[in-house]
Amino acid sequence: MAEIQTIYGIHAVQAVLKSNPERIINVWMDQQRKDAKLQVIQEGLADVGVRIEYVDKKTLEKLSHNGNHQGVLVSVRLPQEHSEEALKQAVKSNDGNAFYLVLDQVTDPHNLGACLRTALAAGVQGVIVPKDNACRLNATVCKVASGAAEVLPVYRVTNLVRVLKWLKGEGVWLTGAAGEASNDIFDAELTGSVAIVMGAEGKGLRKLTQQQCDQLVKIPMSEQVESLNVSVATGVILYEVVRQNKQS
Amino acid sequence: MAEIQTIYGIHAVQAVLKSNPERIINVWMDQQRKDAKLQVIQEGLADVGVRIEYVDKKTLEKLSHNGNHQGVLVSVRLPQEHSEEALKQAVKSNDGNAFYLVLDQVTDPHNLGACLRTALAAGVQGVIVPKDNACRLNATVCKVASGAAEVLPVYRVTNLVRVLKWLKGEGVWLTGAAGEASNDIFDAELTGSVAIVMGAEGKGLRKLTQQQCDQLVKIPMSEQVESLNVSVATGVILYEVVRQNKQS
Repeated sequence: MAEIQTIYGIHAVQAVLKSNPERIINVWMDQQRKDAKLQVIQEGLADVGVRIEYVDKKTLEKLSHNGNHQGVLVSVRLPQEHSEEALKQAVKSNDGNAFYLVLDQVTDPHNLGACLRTALAAGVQGVIVPKDNACRLNATVCKVASGAAEVLPVYRVTNLVRVLKWLKGEGVWLTGAAGEASNDIFDAELTGSVAIVMGAEGKGLRKLTQQQCDQLVKIPMSEQVESLNVSVATGVILYEVVRQNKQS
Repeated sequence: MAEIQTIYGIHAVQAVLKSNPERIINVWMDQQRKDAKLQVIQEGLADVGVRIEYVDKKTLEKLSHNGNHQGVLVSVRLPQEHSEEALKQAVKSNDGNAFYLVLDQVTDPHNLGACLRTALAAGVQGVIVPKDNACRLNATVCKVASGAAEVLPVYRVTNLVRVLKWLKGEGVWLTGAAGEASNDIFDAELTGSVAIVMGAEGKGLRKLTQQQCDQLVKIPMSEQVESLNVSVATGVILYEVVRQNKQS
C-alpha cells in the first residue's frame, strides 16, 4: 500500500502538478473562491484529467488541520523507494563517474529530508539507505526535502555491507565520515567514482559499515563543538567532492 | 528582563553546569531518585552554590511538559546578545584574521540555531545579525545550537549596512552568498580577514546588504534544486573559507 501525503496551498499544489501530476489522487477546492491562481490550478488539473471536488471552507480547514490551504488541497501518493536491483542497474548503466550518498541509520525524518535536498543540489545520483533502523520516505521527509524526494532515487537495501562490497567491486571508492578519522576531508582524495557514507547523528558509522570504507575522513571542527548536524556535515563533504572534481 | 529557558535531563543539565553555571537560576530534582548521575549533578550544583528544590515526580512532569526529565530540571537565563560596540572592540583587539558570519534577516529559530552550531564548528569568531526582522536568541535557538549559543558571541546591530561599511574599513573582505552571482565559491578568494554574508532562505540578501559586499558568490547547484537550507549553505561556504585558509 502506498503511503499518502496531503499537500495544500497554491505554491505547493502547483509544484506537485508540475513535477508529478500522476501522483495526485484527490483534489478539494473551496467552492466560494475564484482567484486567478486557483483557476490556473483548475486548468492544470483538467489537463491531467483529475476530478476536482468542491467543498466549503470548513472542510478544507479540517482536512488541512487549520493549515494555510489558500482554497486548495490535494492528496498524493508518496514517491516510491527503489530496490537493490534498481541500484545495480543504475550503477552499471552509468557512463561517467558514480556519485552516491549512503546514509547509515539516519532515523530522523527532518535529517533525511535535508540530506536529500542537499544531495540533489550537489549532483548525487542516488541515496542508499538500509532497510532496518532507518527513516522511511514519509510525508515529513518529502516536505523537508522540498521536492528532492520526488526526483532523487532513494534505494533501500536489505544488507548494506553487501551492497557496499558490491559497489567497491564496481570501482566505486567508499569514503566514510567519522569524527575519529585522522584524515581531514580537504586532504582526502575524493575524485572519480565515489560514494560518501554518513552515519547517524550522535552515533556515527556502525563498525561493519566503517570496515567497508576505503578511507575515513573527518570535518575539522572547533574543540567546543561535538558534532555537526548530519545534513550540514553531508553538505560540506558532498561539496568537497564537487570542488575536487571541478578542479581536477 | 532576561528571557528564561528550561533545561532538563541529565546530559543537558550537566552541560550547562559545566559551561555556564552562572546562568542557572533554579533547580528542581526528584526527591525519590538516588542515581549516581543525579548525585554528581547535586555535588556540582553544591560547588557553585545553587540551592536545590526537591519535588515529586508529578511536579517535574508538569514543569517539563512531560519531557524526559530524568529527575532533574533547571531554569537558566538565556545567553546575552552583544552590542555593536562589543563587536568593534572584538574586531580591533583581534590579532589574526577576522572570521565573521553575517545573517541578514534569518527569522526561523531552527535555522539560526543550526547556523550558530555550524559557525562555531568552522571557527567563526562571532555572528552579526540585524535588530529588525531577525530571530532573537530564544530557547529554541539555544536548543538547536547544541551549546554553540552559549559560547559564540551573537552581535545584534541596529544598522547592518553601517556595520558592514565599518568592517570594510577595518580590512575585512565581505563575501555575500547570492544565487544570481556569476562566481562559484570555489573560484572566489576567501582567505585573509573575511565576513560571510548570508540572506534569509527564499528571499536571499537585501539589495542594500548586497551592495556592501566586495564580492558575491554562489554555490553551484543542480538545476532541479531551487536553494539549499540556509544552515547547509552556510556550512558549505564557511568550510570553503576553512579549506582555503588551510591550503593558502
